[in-house]
Amino acid sequence: MILINGEFKAHIEVSDRGFQYGDGLFETIAVAKGQPIFFNQHLKRLSEGCSRLHIPFPGSELLTTEAKKLCAHTEAAVLKIILTRGTGGRGYRQPDEIKTTRVLSLHPFPDYPDNYKEQGIVARFCDTPLGLNPRLAGIKHLNRLEQIMARSEWNNPAIQEGIMLDINGHVIEGTMTNLFYLKNKQLYTSSIEASGVAGIMRGLIISVAAKLGLTTIEHNFTQDELLSANEVFVCNSIIGIWPVKQIGKVHFTVGEETQLLQDKLIKLRNEDIKVDL
Amino acid sequence: MILINGEFKAHIEVSDRGFQYGDGLFETIAVAKGQPIFFNQHLKRLSEGCSRLHIPFPGSELLTTEAKKLCAHTEAAVLKIILTRGTGGRGYRQPDEIKTTRVLSLHPFPDYPDNYKEQGIVARFCDTPLGLNPRLAGIKHLNRLEQIMARSEWNNPAIQEGIMLDINGHVIEGTMTNLFYLKNKQLYTSSIEASGVAGIMRGLIISVAAKLGLTTIEHNFTQDELLSANEVFVCNSIIGIWPVKQIGKVHFTVGEETQLLQDKLIKLRNEDIKVDL
Repeated sequence: MILINGEFKAHIEVSDRGFQYGDGLFETIAVAKGQPIFFNQHLKRLSEGCSRLHIPFPGSELLTTEAKKLCAHTEAAVLKIILTRGTGGRGYRQPDEIKTTRVLSLHPFPDYPDNYKEQGIVARFCDTPLGLNPRLAGIKHLNRLEQIMARSEWNNPAIQEGIMLDINGHVIEGTMTNLFYLKNKQLYTSSIEASGVAGIMRGLIISVAAKLGLTTIEHNFTQDELLSANEVFVCNSIIGIWPVKQIGKVHFTVGEETQLLQDKLIKLRNEDIKVDL
Repeated sequence: MILINGEFKAHIEVSDRGFQYGDGLFETIAVAKGQPIFFNQHLKRLSEGCSRLHIPFPGSELLTTEAKKLCAHTEAAVLKIILTRGTGGRGYRQPDEIKTTRVLSLHPFPDYPDNYKEQGIVARFCDTPLGLNPRLAGIKHLNRLEQIMARSEWNNPAIQEGIMLDINGHVIEGTMTNLFYLKNKQLYTSSIEASGVAGIMRGLIISVAAKLGLTTIEHNFTQDELLSANEVFVCNSIIGIWPVKQIGKVHFTVGEETQLLQDKLIKLRNEDIKVDL
């Protein structure tokens, strides 16, 4: 099911700038019991992304109405929202009047085994680097060739995620996740000043951890630093938190702090489902 | 007029990876007398881009047939070819079997005044930087947010092009052009090892210049180096060569070498039109 500018359709104009240049943004949102989860946070990021890219934001009210329409009576699904700069303009130059394209689509919830959450996943380091550009860093925009090239590096189904480094060798994130590690009871995650996505789950974890008295240090770190951690986990809006049990040949245990954060996030999620949009 | 996978259409599936992730490539080609110009060079770059991104190339023969069909009886136009990784796959992961989407579209030839070619254009330095990523550098891919953000920086019609620097302050290219300069009878252009597009016109100029005994040094250079040049010009497949007469407050004369290269390229272009595809 796809809603394009409020109408049920499955096709977009070729001249849409999303197709021509990746000129837009997206959100991937978990849906449970007819309700898009952490929807206000996703709307906020969309609005902020629009502001950074100078794309007119269609408004929270309209997007909420359309999301509710699409998600009604859905037990579990993934809601994807794409906003683009619409059609027109000459070349890279944007049209004088921008009519933002909005695409809301519903997809089956991915069928991940429960043991990913419980026993953890296996990750690898990717060879494809993330470029550096502070101007676009943090934004969940439609320019995703780096992630696609990284994800194409392996086909082994025993490996669930690839970890990407920037061109300076700093560990930034997974192909579809943000990454955290714990070392000596201190929580760390990557700085996303020059590359990487400001994940909704990443933000929630930093705030939940703070309430538990666990501050998060956002910094640049190397592969070696990561491999010397006590606990490692990845996160996104669909999977929540997956502990990482192995990166290459290095093994990790699923630690207490990771489990505590998982529990807190599940509680937060359940509370969010109860709030009527 | 738009040909999508061989059929006249104007819409693309929302699930196309070009729309979802900018997962593809494009070419912008001048058309004269029913003939796409320097078409073999464009096909070669498309094929090489496909190879670097692991997108199956649909083949020169098919693309030539479709291009001829679209361009027949067209006096002057712009042919755009977009190739994407098709539809499907889960998230960034590409589908097991890729069916490349091909979109060929014909557009009016832009109405640039003749004096841009003769007296030169005015350029400015852009504030939006180009990111660094050797893995994607050179490829004319669909991830073009940097160029769009740069092109949105000015609206003054007296300025025809914006010059982009990488995050280290090296001058790389225009928003829609490659850039050259001449200093003490030596031709220079930017290195495109870490960012920038390997323009067809850029390649032709390097080879034409070499035949004139003028070698091109590809290197990293600063704004100051550029501003101290004797001649500056920008180029792409649609405009050919535009001398730059002014960048900010610094003025340049339209030099002999630039004019010589313009003449040689026009000859090359006219010869190319005569070759039946």
